[in-house]
Amino acid sequence: MNPKIIKPTLFLNTQIIKNNIQRMSNKAASQKVGFRPHFKTHQSIAIGEWFREAGTSQITVSSLGMAEYFANNNWKDITVAFPANILEIELINQLASKIKLGLLVESENVIFFLTQHCVFPVNVWLKIDAGYHRTGLDWQDITRISNCASAIRASSNLNLMGLLTHGGNSYHTSKEEIPALFAEGISRLSHVRETLERQGFTNLLISVGDTPGSSLSNSFSGADEVRPGNFVYYDAQQLALEVCTFDQIGALVACPLVALHPQRNEAVIYGGAIHLSKDTVTHQGKTHFGFICSSDGNGWAKIIPDAYIKSLSQEHGVVVLPDEIFQSLTEGDLLYIVPSHSCLSANLLGSGKTTEAQIIDMYRYTSD
Amino acid sequence: MNPKIIKPTLFLNTQIIKNNIQRMSNKAASQKVGFRPHFKTHQSIAIGEWFREAGTSQITVSSLGMAEYFANNNWKDITVAFPANILEIELINQLASKIKLGLLVESENVIFFLTQHCVFPVNVWLKIDAGYHRTGLDWQDITRISNCASAIRASSNLNLMGLLTHGGNSYHTSKEEIPALFAEGISRLSHVRETLERQGFTNLLISVGDTPGSSLSNSFSGADEVRPGNFVYYDAQQLALEVCTFDQIGALVACPLVALHPQRNEAVIYGGAIHLSKDTVTHQGKTHFGFICSSDGNGWAKIIPDAYIKSLSQEHGVVVLPDEIFQSLTEGDLLYIVPSHSCLSANLLGSGKTTEAQIIDMYRYTSD
Repeated sequence: MNPKIIKPTLFLNTQIIKNNIQRMSNKAASQKVGFRPHFKTHQSIAIGEWFREAGTSQITVSSLGMAEYFANNNWKDITVAFPANILEIELINQLASKIKLGLLVESENVIFFLTQHCVFPVNVWLKIDAGYHRTGLDWQDITRISNCASAIRASSNLNLMGLLTHGGNSYHTSKEEIPALFAEGISRLSHVRETLERQGFTNLLISVGDTPGSSLSNSFSGADEVRPGNFVYYDAQQLALEVCTFDQIGALVACPLVALHPQRNEAVIYGGAIHLSKDTVTHQGKTHFGFICSSDGNGWAKIIPDAYIKSLSQEHGVVVLPDEIFQSLTEGDLLYIVPSHSCLSANLLGSGKTTEAQIIDMYRYTSD
Repeated sequence: MNPKIIKPTLFLNTQIIKNNIQRMSNKAASQKVGFRPHFKTHQSIAIGEWFREAGTSQITVSSLGMAEYFANNNWKDITVAFPANILEIELINQLASKIKLGLLVESENVIFFLTQHCVFPVNVWLKIDAGYHRTGLDWQDITRISNCASAIRASSNLNLMGLLTHGGNSYHTSKEEIPALFAEGISRLSHVRETLERQGFTNLLISVGDTPGSSLSNSFSGADEVRPGNFVYYDAQQLALEVCTFDQIGALVACPLVALHPQRNEAVIYGGAIHLSKDTVTHQGKTHFGFICSSDGNGWAKIIPDAYIKSLSQEHGVVVLPDEIFQSLTEGDLLYIVPSHSCLSANLLGSGKTTEAQIIDMYRYTSD
């Protein structure tokens, strides 16, 4: 199970990840909607190839830099699911010169800027706020939506693809309510589309995101494409929401145990905020930084009940453990963490190792 | 003020940082204690040089990988202020072959391992828990402390330097109580030292950390060295604790504004959990992810009252702004964030730009 792990390491279960990819890909196909998985969770060329083997050709990313990373590795149809950052117009033009680039817009200012500065054709999606209230045009504000659509139609280099939303509010609800929320998002976008159609905007697509909705909904009816990302690994937040089961957890963070405090049954791991992130998970009324699981020698076995990361500082994690587990541990052992939010942990760790000891390189953000 | 910043960027004020370095360096000198600044905040060769210019020759880091980074750049005396990770024994030996390497130990298991596996002499510090309860030997558990000291004395390649603590509990108290807490830590270590001296362990040093204590205490009496780190940049948490003033904030995160939501006076920045970290700051009863400040054209001017980062997702930050500021903004403007915790933001951004447009490279963690 341990391909020579000596410091905090993203440990990836190849079979589980491939199963996760195949299951979601099959689901989209059976629902007859496009599958444009979000690659911000794994950010990896190698795992991208596992998607390619499952038939994926269109992808989503969360930044222009990440789009460049995948474009340099033969991905030709990439949507950047983030409001277009006009300061990066040079990179937008570079990318649009060689791939089918999709951008999100939600203001006439940005549309005018792109109209003036884009040198190559760019696909644009109207980002619609269907209830999450993070970003996007309010789905009920038809005037602003319509003005944006008109501005895009008036542009010779912008191609209006359709309406896109991310139902991030699914993370703040319950398993039972998620499918209804997912359907509500599609329904609200459908309403906007019908209105725009009456105004002469035709052939608009509807693109929806979010792993909880895509995982738990039996029907994608009304959507034209789905963009889940986290499902490739899932994580403690998804477990706590009951969006996935433990045997679908594709990524753990293996952390060396460096200190034991028997007086309080606490272990200290080399594994802190710079490896796991300070994102939390709330489960059974307790908010913490991740579950701990045991190893069975060649894969992960099960979550240790009542074990969790109590606190994180820059490099330290303080782990609470039941007595019988605590007694069995010594410094230099590895603890396997189900990270609270796998997207953030993967980003921090910058690379991974698979159960087959393959090194997985990843995109890394830099401001240079 | 803006050296061509187009995406989330650690923006460093050279003069403020140099002032911070000089002030703390002078304070340690005037108090006649050693100055071993913690480099985990900046993690940068270039900023290390600014310390060197101010006379620093001994440093602290938080991982063996970071020690290697600085050792490769001519730092010869480095303490890794983290419980020794015995899985990295190869790197310990590599480092100890060329620099004066200090490690922290707190268990006989680890001391025995190091005794058996260290090839070159290593300085070890007994990590003492003086009240923070994250890690270390309880300062009152003289038996365990004494057993560890004896095990070190019995080792031919381990050299017992003294007692080291980190008063991280200072972050959870108030400005008024911090100096007393700092003094209490020193006093508790002094008590341990006196007991060990009676047992024949002589010439033990006392090393204390933490920016709040080092910044606010007028006396370092009883300590032999101080290891503050965060003071080089300070941040929103230190501001909220009143450990520093705004004109001592050395690092901001410049973030492009990508969307405006006038109906709720919220702006969305390109700047999320992967740039700023999900660490929070609590100020005047409100918990958020950082303050926003205005620019005066060639430096940072002042904090915008009632402006803060309300939420962070992977790449998005949602910023609440007062009406008059909101009205003045447009997509493509830069917002300057005082990050909640500058150590974590700097680590995430991986590089910085100074007010003089110098690119600051940084150490980056990798599990490879």
